[in-house]
Amino acid sequence: MLPKAGLVTMHSGNVSGYDPESGKVVIKPSGMDYDLVTPANLVEVDLATGEIAPGQAKASVDLPHHLYLYRHVPELRSVVHTHSNYATAFASVHKSIPCCLTAISDEFGGEIPCAPYIDNEGDHIGEGILKYRGRGPAILLGNHGVFAWGTSVSNALKAAIMVEDVAKTVHLGMQLGTLIPIDQTEVDKWWNRYHTSYGQDSSL
Amino acid sequence: MLPKAGLVTMHSGNVSGYDPESGKVVIKPSGMDYDLVTPANLVEVDLATGEIAPGQAKASVDLPHHLYLYRHVPELRSVVHTHSNYATAFASVHKSIPCCLTAISDEFGGEIPCAPYIDNEGDHIGEGILKYRGRGPAILLGNHGVFAWGTSVSNALKAAIMVEDVAKTVHLGMQLGTLIPIDQTEVDKWWNRYHTSYGQDSSL
Amino acid sequence: MLPKAGLVTMHSGNVSGYDPESGKVVIKPSGMDYDLVTPANLVEVDLATGEIAPGQAKASVDLPHHLYLYRHVPELRSVVHTHSNYATAFASVHKSIPCCLTAISDEFGGEIPCAPYIDNEGDHIGEGILKYRGRGPAILLGNHGVFAWGTSVSNALKAAIMVEDVAKTVHLGMQLGTLIPIDQTEVDKWWNRYHTSYGQDSSL
Amino acid sequence: MLPKAGLVTMHSGNVSGYDPESGKVVIKPSGMDYDLVTPANLVEVDLATGEIAPGQAKASVDLPHHLYLYRHVPELRSVVHTHSNYATAFASVHKSIPCCLTAISDEFGGEIPCAPYIDNEGDHIGEGILKYRGRGPAILLGNHGVFAWGTSVSNALKAAIMVEDVAKTVHLGMQLGTLIPIDQTEVDKWWNRYHTSYGQDSSL
Repeated sequence: MLPKAGLVTMHSGNVSGYDPESGKVVIKPSGMDYDLVTPANLVEVDLATGEIAPGQAKASVDLPHHLYLYRHVPELRSVVHTHSNYATAFASVHKSIPCCLTAISDEFGGEIPCAPYIDNEGDHIGEGILKYRGRGPAILLGNHGVFAWGTSVSNALKAAIMVEDVAKTVHLGMQLGTLIPIDQTEVDKWWNRYHTSYGQDSSL
Repeated sequence: MLPKAGLVTMHSGNVSGYDPESGKVVIKPSGMDYDLVTPANLVEVDLATGEIAPGQAKASVDLPHHLYLYRHVPELRSVVHTHSNYATAFASVHKSIPCCLTAISDEFGGEIPCAPYIDNEGDHIGEGILKYRGRGPAILLGNHGVFAWGTSVSNALKAAIMVEDVAKTVHLGMQLGTLIPIDQTEVDKWWNRYHTSYGQDSSL
Repeated sequence: MLPKAGLVTMHSGNVSGYDPESGKVVIKPSGMDYDLVTPANLVEVDLATGEIAPGQAKASVDLPHHLYLYRHVPELRSVVHTHSNYATAFASVHKSIPCCLTAISDEFGGEIPCAPYIDNEGDHIGEGILKYRGRGPAILLGNHGVFAWGTSVSNALKAAIMVEDVAKTVHLGMQLGTLIPIDQTEVDKWWNRYHTSYGQDSSL
Repeated sequence: MLPKAGLVTMHSGNVSGYDPESGKVVIKPSGMDYDLVTPANLVEVDLATGEIAPGQAKASVDLPHHLYLYRHVPELRSVVHTHSNYATAFASVHKSIPCCLTAISDEFGGEIPCAPYIDNEGDHIGEGILKYRGRGPAILLGNHGVFAWGTSVSNALKAAIMVEDVAKTVHLGMQLGTLIPIDQTEVDKWWNRYHTSYGQDSSL
């Protein structure tokens, strides 16, 4: 879905999923074009030990950040990383995406924050995501891109797609005049409706 | 057609149709990706009573606004709601789309107005649409998105598509200099030609 | 090709071709979505008399402008009209597209001019196109859109596609700083190379 | 891949590959739409002599620049030339793309430079590319477009695609505020990781 949604270019970005029953994380292979990625060449990693059984492709270089998030946020089941253009444009100037749309209120419940620049060493990125994240399931990393997450792969993908969609609308709005924010009281009305009465029951 | 035209992202937006013979409105299910929507899981609602026969999916949370419009504008047969990017960018700064193109004159007969922010309670959105709408079949809602309508599903879809198309052109024009409006006398020439001599006879 | 190239939205825009042997112009039917246009419902018009044999669909409302151009420019074989977004954005502010790219030098040999607003009565549009056109095969009409033409249908389509492509690049450049024009002597080098040594011989 | 990636319009741009065993360069035919290009009508050129065996289509008018690069940079195996919109927008104002993204650090190791305007005579373009190129595998040519290269066709295509992708993000960022550069020390961390631990081993 990431290439189809226009969120990734060739081999960039990555996505992982975590299965708590087996304790395994599966993640995209490093530097492989999405055209070539199949279930068979996804890389399986043991979350507890970080071990990768031999004979597999090399995992995404961002694997440590994915593992860090699963280890520290128990309800997580999927993490998505992209350099999608409009969202990363905000990251290039270290600006959060303000909550000026009902769609942002629905999905993120407030602004989508932007962390400062973080280098690629050790757990810096994982730690930064937890330090700077807001109410919703996504964050911008300064000079870098987007991390999004969810309690399922489809939720994490939806979060990544919605970040880019609202980043585009807000970017376009900023070229037209001064954005008009939505009061937090009103933001909460949309957030609450979206998290209570929206969507189909899981039994459907 | 909404996803194909790039007007909706995943599950966002919704569309309904009204059949006056049966008195039924059919509407998109809530929070369901367009890939999964089929005629079989559209939700059927009785316009007079608002009742939904049991066993169906949950209707779009925007159902009340659709019903309000059908109840107050008898000739309506379809309503479309989107968060399409360029049009919603105008809504994010509470600006109407000025009538500076012959295509806007043709389809909307003047500016496409933008209502102020309206909350999601009761009939506020339906009332606001009727209060702030202009000559043509679409309106922007502040901080929110687009409502468009028509005397057929294809007309309502066309209105939603044209709002986004002209919003894009006008947005791009505003980055190049000062928009040059078209005099209302000239606007009327295009509107009248479009509503009299344009298109095929229905008997074709 | 027009919808595939993203130059037209639903039913907007139109294209015609002229066959001097039969003296007939064929043109898109009025207000018909491109999905529905087939060779069988193109409208055939006698260029000399303007007569349309009975039993055909209604011709595009822009037919008079097409006929005017074929009558006054003998080498024309095709005319294309679009509201493509970036080019029409220039038209919305009555600005020509300056010749600041080698691609514009190649195809248009100088700026792509923008005519003032012209109403839709009589031969005003056809006359305006001939009055304001420049060296290359396309013009912008103020507040309206693009007319492009050529000695074959593929040439006219190429001109329409290239107008939009260079309009996009120039628009984006104008957001980055001050455009740097190319001297006319240099423009001529590209134009001459493109019109002498570029492309395949027709005998290929 | 060039049309699929949206980097070329109809017949514009060109790509070549060099096989050192046979000493032959193959290049796109001149002015031929990508839809019509097949392996059979690619033009084969002897790198040492510049000779083209008779009976082939005419080679791209940019052939001399491709040959110049292969003759002066022995490790080159592919050269790609595009007029992709966002990158060419930077070229229209003679601006380099600053290194303000980790993706630019990864792929280009610093800014993507923009050469001044260069005319189309002799070896001027080839010489200018070598004179003005930076650390990474691509350059902008003022008022013109992009040249990208690599040690394989897929590497050269990736470079061309990444130039446009980062040009778009940086362009969008520049509309939001002041770009925040990445220190060269940090740029080097990404460049080194990308060139040592990223991707799959060739034995995979």
